[in-house]
Amino acid sequence: MQLWLYCALLAFAAGGCLAQKPRPCRSPPLLEGSMTVITQNGSFSAYAKYAYDAFLQRIRIRELVHANNKTFFQDALLLYQKHVMYLINHKNQTCKKLNLTSQFHPMRIPCNSTFLGQVVLGSLSAPAEGLLVNSWAGQATKEQGQYMLTFTEFGCLPVSVLFNSPNSGWVVTNFFNIVRGIKEPSQFIPPPFCEDDPLETEEEGDFFTAFF
Amino acid sequence: MQLWLYCALLAFAAGGCLAQKPRPCRSPPLLEGSMTVITQNGSFSAYAKYAYDAFLQRIRIRELVHANNKTFFQDALLLYQKHVMYLINHKNQTCKKLNLTSQFHPMRIPCNSTFLGQVVLGSLSAPAEGLLVNSWAGQATKEQGQYMLTFTEFGCLPVSVLFNSPNSGWVVTNFFNIVRGIKEPSQFIPPPFCEDDPLETEEEGDFFTAFF
Repeated sequence: MQLWLYCALLAFAAGGCLAQKPRPCRSPPLLEGSMTVITQNGSFSAYAKYAYDAFLQRIRIRELVHANNKTFFQDALLLYQKHVMYLINHKNQTCKKLNLTSQFHPMRIPCNSTFLGQVVLGSLSAPAEGLLVNSWAGQATKEQGQYMLTFTEFGCLPVSVLFNSPNSGWVVTNFFNIVRGIKEPSQFIPPPFCEDDPLETEEEGDFFTAFF
Repeated sequence: MQLWLYCALLAFAAGGCLAQKPRPCRSPPLLEGSMTVITQNGSFSAYAKYAYDAFLQRIRIRELVHANNKTFFQDALLLYQKHVMYLINHKNQTCKKLNLTSQFHPMRIPCNSTFLGQVVLGSLSAPAEGLLVNSWAGQATKEQGQYMLTFTEFGCLPVSVLFNSPNSGWVVTNFFNIVRGIKEPSQFIPPPFCEDDPLETEEEGDFFTAFF
């Protein structure tokens, strides 16, 4: 009887340990936050505020971009279910409506990623002094590059994304100031002056169009 | 009477707001943790575990270094009060004892740094999902470079250090897995096989010698 109890306890403990290995996860479906993007050679950098709705596949992103020695503001609304994106110019009250060619990518760790490790940013020695994060690596087949993703253990929120490809070199994206939920749902609805703009079917755009 | 009360409350509230602006801080005097260092061109990278004692001005650092296409392990003990550092080779049971030329720099935000901003890594929307950090920038006069420091708001623990100079380019250091206190104080005492080694007065070293 004691042997059975011992075996059962051992199996339970082993199961518990195995279950503690982090698994690829998906971020909450409604988020707002900020991010910075910078390339290895420093020729491109951006500071952006975004709102992300994975239910209705919508992203609104407002960013200050510095590229090719020019600095400009960009405001983009991406409606993946409708396959359209708007580049909004508030100053001139005009819109550029583009055919959105790319698919919606939810914020998540891809299932075929390799777990690199778990670390604490700061410390767990005292409350509010540390953040437990997991890092993952993998190959982005379409872009022929490698990525390294760091997401929080609790909440599956993005902290940083490193991407490297022969075309881009290293691109570092840092995420911060995330809140769960959407403060203002109307930001996913095109402004009134965008509505009458016919779709410029000859021009196409994707997520990266918002940055250039 | 009501006017006085109003003024007093306003002054109290204003004082409270002003007092909330982060100030340069100093890390706890006894710490252990890990760090990674990488240069912009990727020619140098290191993963290190360190123990830091600001009371007695001692640092022990064990690191795996990749530089100039070579990978090697380095174990260094820096005793700033005695002005000596040891490069310890456990395999051969030998030590290199050097004259430690640099001063001890406590982990801290220099007082003349400029406050850049406060952000949350992750989110404060739920417990354990976020970490409040402050970023500071300044000039390192001796090295003729600029630095950007990110430390936790609570605990004043290092998260990242960005340094840029004409000589080095960008150098990115990330800190993690910090614990308050020293697990094993004997790591600051040179191993027995180091004691008899005479000081090689002709050779000098500083903190960066530990990485090369």
